Amino acid sequence: MNEKQLAAERSVDFIKDGMTVGLGTGSTVNYMIDALAQKVKKGLKIKTVATSKLTFQLAASSGIDVVDLELVDRIDLTIDGADEVDPQLNGIKGGGAALLYEKIVASNSAKNIWIVDSSKLVKKLGRFPLPVEVIPYGSNLLISKFEKKKFKPAFRKFEGNNFITDGGHFLIDLNLEKIDDPKGFEEELKTYPGVVEVGLFAGIADMVIVGEGKEIRIIDRMDRPAKK
Amino acid sequence: MNEKQLAAERSVDFIKDGMTVGLGTGSTVNYMIDALAQKVKKGLKIKTVATSKLTFQLAASSGIDVVDLELVDRIDLTIDGADEVDPQLNGIKGGGAALLYEKIVASNSAKNIWIVDSSKLVKKLGRFPLPVEVIPYGSNLLISKFEKKKFKPAFRKFEGNNFITDGGHFLIDLNLEKIDDPKGFEEELKTYPGVVEVGLFAGIADMVIVGEGKEIRIIDRMDRPAKK
Repeated sequence: MNEKQLAAERSVDFIKDGMTVGLGTGSTVNYMIDALAQKVKKGLKIKTVATSKLTFQLAASSGIDVVDLELVDRIDLTIDGADEVDPQLNGIKGGGAALLYEKIVASNSAKNIWIVDSSKLVKKLGRFPLPVEVIPYGSNLLISKFEKKKFKPAFRKFEGNNFITDGGHFLIDLNLEKIDDPKGFEEELKTYPGVVEVGLFAGIADMVIVGEGKEIRIIDRMDRPAKK
Repeated sequence: MNEKQLAAERSVDFIKDGMTVGLGTGSTVNYMIDALAQKVKKGLKIKTVATSKLTFQLAASSGIDVVDLELVDRIDLTIDGADEVDPQLNGIKGGGAALLYEKIVASNSAKNIWIVDSSKLVKKLGRFPLPVEVIPYGSNLLISKFEKKKFKPAFRKFEGNNFITDGGHFLIDLNLEKIDDPKGFEEELKTYPGVVEVGLFAGIADMVIVGEGKEIRIIDRMDRPAKK
């Protein structure tokens, strides 16, 4: 069992009967959905909401009850991956292009657990390109502004064209190398008209489950330094 | 000639040969497009970008050269309307549902002129419902959050369904009565995941041309109190 799978399998222990569960997106989440589908087959009663078309399809086809977010009034627990996690449990997400719906679900979730392999733990965020979801209209001018700020922006591409998200937007990846103040930088980026969402998730994760070799490590926010 | 028309006709005097001009959206802008079309017929050479499908159609069918925003590297001047303007030239926009593209164009424009009738001048913003453009996914939960904050939110409706913007999003109108700190409140609203843009335009207008009775009044930012 690889690190992603180890973290994924452990995370489903936190899912209890009657919960509404947010399902993230990505390869580690796919392992989690497999494990969750096994528990559902054995009788676990839950409903879920999905953060992407891919997750919706995988979960629904595995026999998991997936409902539209419009039909729930609360989410008890969301389990998602992350591309980078720092010691304060801030993260970069969006390598899988689902950051907008992931953030909407996370922000409506009473508790958030991230599942990662050990390569995702970093001292400081920013080596992983920071995804910014943007309105296509005027996005070329946004790229120019980001270039002037030395954010080293690049449109995410798919088969030669700009990638289009589930929400119908483009993604611009910023190659920053390091982000000193995740919360402040997120707020700064949101002042640019055309920016829909930023792949910085500051103060959102309550717990991170890390697969390390053959072991699991659980990092709880309660044990961490206070939120920045 | 009514107040809107007076302001609109005056505004086109600021458009010069060779300019790239942003065209706002709404009934006052429509008068401006009529006046601009006359000048173009008489030989004015400009190109324009539109902030809505409606404006695009009206301008293009009037013989004005309208190009895609992706094809311009700068906008010299944008002329737009506003729903409310305060003494610091902060405004509420979006009654015409085009706030997102209006703000993208305005933020890329070297100069912004607003044209309004005298009823739009207010001492304090907020009596006009503040439009917030939001991602449909999870917007019911956003409504709940806004209700808890006593923002008195309501989905903008069209023929019984949620109105859909040119960008494919919903609009939530906030019935606030007054907004004490436009810039700060805009930033606060943008921290809610799912909020795409806010109809608060703080520090954007450089000049407001007001039709008052049979007269024109020009309010220049230079003459105003410093930006908040």
